[in-house]
Amino acid sequence: MREIARPDPSAVEALGKYGVATVHEAQGRTGLLASYMRPIYVGAAMSGPAVTVLVPPGDNWMIHAAVEVCRPGDVLVVAPSSPCSDGYFGDLLATSLQARGVKGLIIDAGVRDVATLTEMRFPVWSKCIWAQGTIKASLGSVNVPVICAGHRIEPGDVIVADDDGVVSVNRADAVKVAAAGKQRIANEEEKRKRLAAGELGLDIYKFREKLAALGLEYK
Amino acid sequence: MREIARPDPSAVEALGKYGVATVHEAQGRTGLLASYMRPIYVGAAMSGPAVTVLVPPGDNWMIHAAVEVCRPGDVLVVAPSSPCSDGYFGDLLATSLQARGVKGLIIDAGVRDVATLTEMRFPVWSKCIWAQGTIKASLGSVNVPVICAGHRIEPGDVIVADDDGVVSVNRADAVKVAAAGKQRIANEEEKRKRLAAGELGLDIYKFREKLAALGLEYK
Amino acid sequence: MREIARPDPSAVEALGKYGVATVHEAQGRTGLLASYMRPIYVGAAMSGPAVTVLVPPGDNWMIHAAVEVCRPGDVLVVAPSSPCSDGYFGDLLATSLQARGVKGLIIDAGVRDVATLTEMRFPVWSKCIWAQGTIKASLGSVNVPVICAGHRIEPGDVIVADDDGVVSVNRADAVKVAAAGKQRIANEEEKRKRLAAGELGLDIYKFREKLAALGLEYK
Amino acid sequence: MREIARPDPSAVEALGKYGVATVHEAQGRTGLLASYMRPIYVGAAMSGPAVTVLVPPGDNWMIHAAVEVCRPGDVLVVAPSSPCSDGYFGDLLATSLQARGVKGLIIDAGVRDVATLTEMRFPVWSKCIWAQGTIKASLGSVNVPVICAGHRIEPGDVIVADDDGVVSVNRADAVKVAAAGKQRIANEEEKRKRLAAGELGLDIYKFREKLAALGLEYK
Amino acid sequence: MREIARPDPSAVEALGKYGVATVHEAQGRTGLLASYMRPIYVGAAMSGPAVTVLVPPGDNWMIHAAVEVCRPGDVLVVAPSSPCSDGYFGDLLATSLQARGVKGLIIDAGVRDVATLTEMRFPVWSKCIWAQGTIKASLGSVNVPVICAGHRIEPGDVIVADDDGVVSVNRADAVKVAAAGKQRIANEEEKRKRLAAGELGLDIYKFREKLAALGLEYK
Amino acid sequence: MREIARPDPSAVEALGKYGVATVHEAQGRTGLLASYMRPIYVGAAMSGPAVTVLVPPGDNWMIHAAVEVCRPGDVLVVAPSSPCSDGYFGDLLATSLQARGVKGLIIDAGVRDVATLTEMRFPVWSKCIWAQGTIKASLGSVNVPVICAGHRIEPGDVIVADDDGVVSVNRADAVKVAAAGKQRIANEEEKRKRLAAGELGLDIYKFREKLAALGLEYK
Repeated sequence: MREIARPDPSAVEALGKYGVATVHEAQGRTGLLASYMRPIYVGAAMSGPAVTVLVPPGDNWMIHAAVEVCRPGDVLVVAPSSPCSDGYFGDLLATSLQARGVKGLIIDAGVRDVATLTEMRFPVWSKCIWAQGTIKASLGSVNVPVICAGHRIEPGDVIVADDDGVVSVNRADAVKVAAAGKQRIANEEEKRKRLAAGELGLDIYKFREKLAALGLEYK
Repeated sequence: MREIARPDPSAVEALGKYGVATVHEAQGRTGLLASYMRPIYVGAAMSGPAVTVLVPPGDNWMIHAAVEVCRPGDVLVVAPSSPCSDGYFGDLLATSLQARGVKGLIIDAGVRDVATLTEMRFPVWSKCIWAQGTIKASLGSVNVPVICAGHRIEPGDVIVADDDGVVSVNRADAVKVAAAGKQRIANEEEKRKRLAAGELGLDIYKFREKLAALGLEYK
Repeated sequence: MREIARPDPSAVEALGKYGVATVHEAQGRTGLLASYMRPIYVGAAMSGPAVTVLVPPGDNWMIHAAVEVCRPGDVLVVAPSSPCSDGYFGDLLATSLQARGVKGLIIDAGVRDVATLTEMRFPVWSKCIWAQGTIKASLGSVNVPVICAGHRIEPGDVIVADDDGVVSVNRADAVKVAAAGKQRIANEEEKRKRLAAGELGLDIYKFREKLAALGLEYK
Repeated sequence: MREIARPDPSAVEALGKYGVATVHEAQGRTGLLASYMRPIYVGAAMSGPAVTVLVPPGDNWMIHAAVEVCRPGDVLVVAPSSPCSDGYFGDLLATSLQARGVKGLIIDAGVRDVATLTEMRFPVWSKCIWAQGTIKASLGSVNVPVICAGHRIEPGDVIVADDDGVVSVNRADAVKVAAAGKQRIANEEEKRKRLAAGELGLDIYKFREKLAALGLEYK
Repeated sequence: MREIARPDPSAVEALGKYGVATVHEAQGRTGLLASYMRPIYVGAAMSGPAVTVLVPPGDNWMIHAAVEVCRPGDVLVVAPSSPCSDGYFGDLLATSLQARGVKGLIIDAGVRDVATLTEMRFPVWSKCIWAQGTIKASLGSVNVPVICAGHRIEPGDVIVADDDGVVSVNRADAVKVAAAGKQRIANEEEKRKRLAAGELGLDIYKFREKLAALGLEYK
Repeated sequence: MREIARPDPSAVEALGKYGVATVHEAQGRTGLLASYMRPIYVGAAMSGPAVTVLVPPGDNWMIHAAVEVCRPGDVLVVAPSSPCSDGYFGDLLATSLQARGVKGLIIDAGVRDVATLTEMRFPVWSKCIWAQGTIKASLGSVNVPVICAGHRIEPGDVIVADDDGVVSVNRADAVKVAAAGKQRIANEEEKRKRLAAGELGLDIYKFREKLAALGLEYK
């Protein structure tokens, strides 16, 4: 599948700026990948449309085929057809993707050459870091819907990733979620100031009455 | 439970200075939380009396109620009533706690906004980093004994946390354990010098005879 | 076992320079320890002949006995006789090993005092970080073959460890694998340049025909 | 969502007869739920259209709401919105479902009262067995697409479950997959006889030449 | 600690009859051990006062010392001082305990000889089944409070265990919890009949109005 | 590797009779595979010489090649080259192996068709039960040393497996370990009678003095 629809670029940029936690809340607490998906270096952050790859266990051939369909700004999303920790991806593939303007990689498996990837500032969120090599023997699929780390991602969905993990936004919802995220950021800013000044959330959010109604007692 | 007894402040400070491994040894190799409790940034370290919170799975309401009972120097300890990885805690709650002088958080669940928490230097030791949002629907309990990451913590117990993890000291034992820790640090200093000079532990600790008695053979 | 055969020093040095992923590939995709073996600080890297220690669960006495047989440049490899997460190793043992020129530690268990170990730049790859203390009551064995994190290591095998994890090379194969690694590095350098210039792996490796033969279709 | 489209009943029955492994192969090695989904008793087996329920962590209220929309022959599929091991389901809910002709339960969480469920012959495939009680405080959703144990299930998809685990077939593919399964069963029967008579798979499948071509050597 | 207070025998018997799930609910959804604690054979069930043993990792000596303080009807509860999967317990220890009238074993570690234990009908709930042998070198403690599989158990607490797992009741609460359990069983019986007759829980529990008030919509 | 040396048949038979726990102790508490290796049905037990297979992740082709080199009484041991849970093995392969007199399978991966395998009484010890299909694309190795579930097994080593798990005995040690096992069984028989008669292990093994010497106190 060479051609995919991509989301609105300004929404992609805005979602990346808001970050994973805000985007997750802004779309109704959905879209997170599993908590085991961690960045290879502290401070990694990115957003972009997903180019998806379904790979056999221990075989990274299809990632090579996927490079060709990536465009600048894309994020590569790789999911194995059964659970695998092998190191499908290293610095050569990263060099190739970076040369094409790809922003980073989400992989529900292992990654290697992480010292070099960190130097290159090519961010990767992965299930683990492991050097186990893979082969090139079997086909997979590029740009089909995949289940990656417990969440379903379609080609063109917006991936947002930072130190908190990875969230995915349906392509069709990108603009709407970006708007909700903007609103959320604005609301939080005001609350942050009041909390920093020593006001209690119990008072700001008017929780005291609700908690009392549920039977909260102080001793 | 608004009021709790707190431990001797100088003992709390001393225990924090000695660190997790020394405090654990000084109280007879007890008090550690599970090894999965990790700090969100390298170099985080703190000590303080525990304010405990028991929360339902996926519901962080009670943390808001707990803020009010915290005093400067306290450490918030959050345990869910059944295993949960949700992100109960983020930068707004941290802002509120930091405004009240709370030193940090121990949570047997997930945390989010870790980039911001790191900038704020608000240390958190958690089971995982995950952005999954929580609701505010059910009551829990503040300042009751909790099982947190496999260890029982009572309100007012001393929490010590650093890069090695988290240890808890019974409030009533704080002064005694601090004294034992001081002694231990002093003993280690001398051994460190001798080891650094090339002496063998086998000789310093007089292990050769004991090992030989047990049947150790050299080939 | 006091005396062990050690591998060719220049091969040891070369293998360390090539790094874990390259060495693993150079010896036919074998020799990796499990992916849970992680360095205690970012950027840790080393290579050296293995001095092996088999320890009982929760008992680190034999590590003290092993210090004596280490020589400058060696790497200590510790494996428990049944799975254990206890903190067998801390800054005093590291001081002793560093004084004898030992390069670092591989341990299929826990480690503690990691802040101090990091300051000392004494690298450790471990299953976890945990302060749980151990006793000195039972014998183990020094310089016997051990299964460490899923891989068999014999005394004198070459250990290579970096941010990607840990790999082991049979002593007898060290020179041969180093030669293969050198070749591999050279090959990769040229490919890296072409990929960085925007050439596709599909073309460089001539994958298009093979993928088409297997039935790859573009839509 | 009260009304859902259901698959062809004879296809559902046939798929159940063929079993999980055959159905998985017949639809191109897809559709399996994670390997941790295990039956509560040996010999449990069933097939039926999925009625799906998305539940909050630790809250089983929505399962009660889902009972009403189940029809005879259906299978209830329950997925929490974040990972949870609580015992959402016990013998009272099973009594209610069994009274309505529901065939069994697939739940990516815990179950309890398993001794009674086994007596009732109400089969459950679950992540674990745990008695942890749940509350009734928050809404979820009935008959929306859910990710259950790593696989996406839509309402009306065919669930097949037996001692091998759980597989799901898209509603629209049920008849086609049933036909492929029938063919597969027939092919296997003949192979089974030849293998039982001592013929080698190497010969039946003509593997010798292919293996030799790849370089297999005998020593 | 030779002498411990034991709970009311008729409460112990009643709690055993009600079973794990009912007892857990009857004491306010508390007291469960972790879900990994599983019986070695289907249909195992028992209740009795806890005799507790804290053991070092890989050392079962203290279990031998504990046998002497057990009385007919007791349940032995064994917890290691750090996580361990070794097989601390086998058929000889079971023979000894059974000769003294002990009802069964709860162990947060491994067990072996499970075929023989099953023949003897000596029930064990354990973290795993593993034959790994242990040594007899170090002391532990008998009849001290222990953390076993995530829950704190004091000597004399009532242990109830069946196919659903293990729950513990504080000794002082045994009579009260037994009464609450009796009431619960009675209430459930009536509901079970109505549900079996086809009535909906939505109607029996009057959930429709509450769900509508929270905003549940039907489509 | 077609031809392997096999161990003494009477030792193999005797080791099987003594069982996993006894054999493990008789060879100095070594040789166990990891505790996650569980039989697919209760009561499975066998012993035999290992025919080993190293397979790529998700590829079971080499198992077909291994069938040919199995002889009556052998046990097939399958290990993947990187961790994998796929269902490499089902009832057709079992039919073929059973026709050749193979006693059973040890596999550090998944297995499927377990209901049929149970009917056939073809025992399997595996890491999990999962139906995930595998491909036939790449070579592996037959009768090379493998690491299987954390233990190294060479072709011709004796495998003993029962409800307690799996243990392996070096071929060269089979007769010696069988003799030690026989002695152990005899010793245990006498102890079992005394323990069943109510004697305490503390007295039989004369532990009281040793425990007192270590400082055990009674309160």
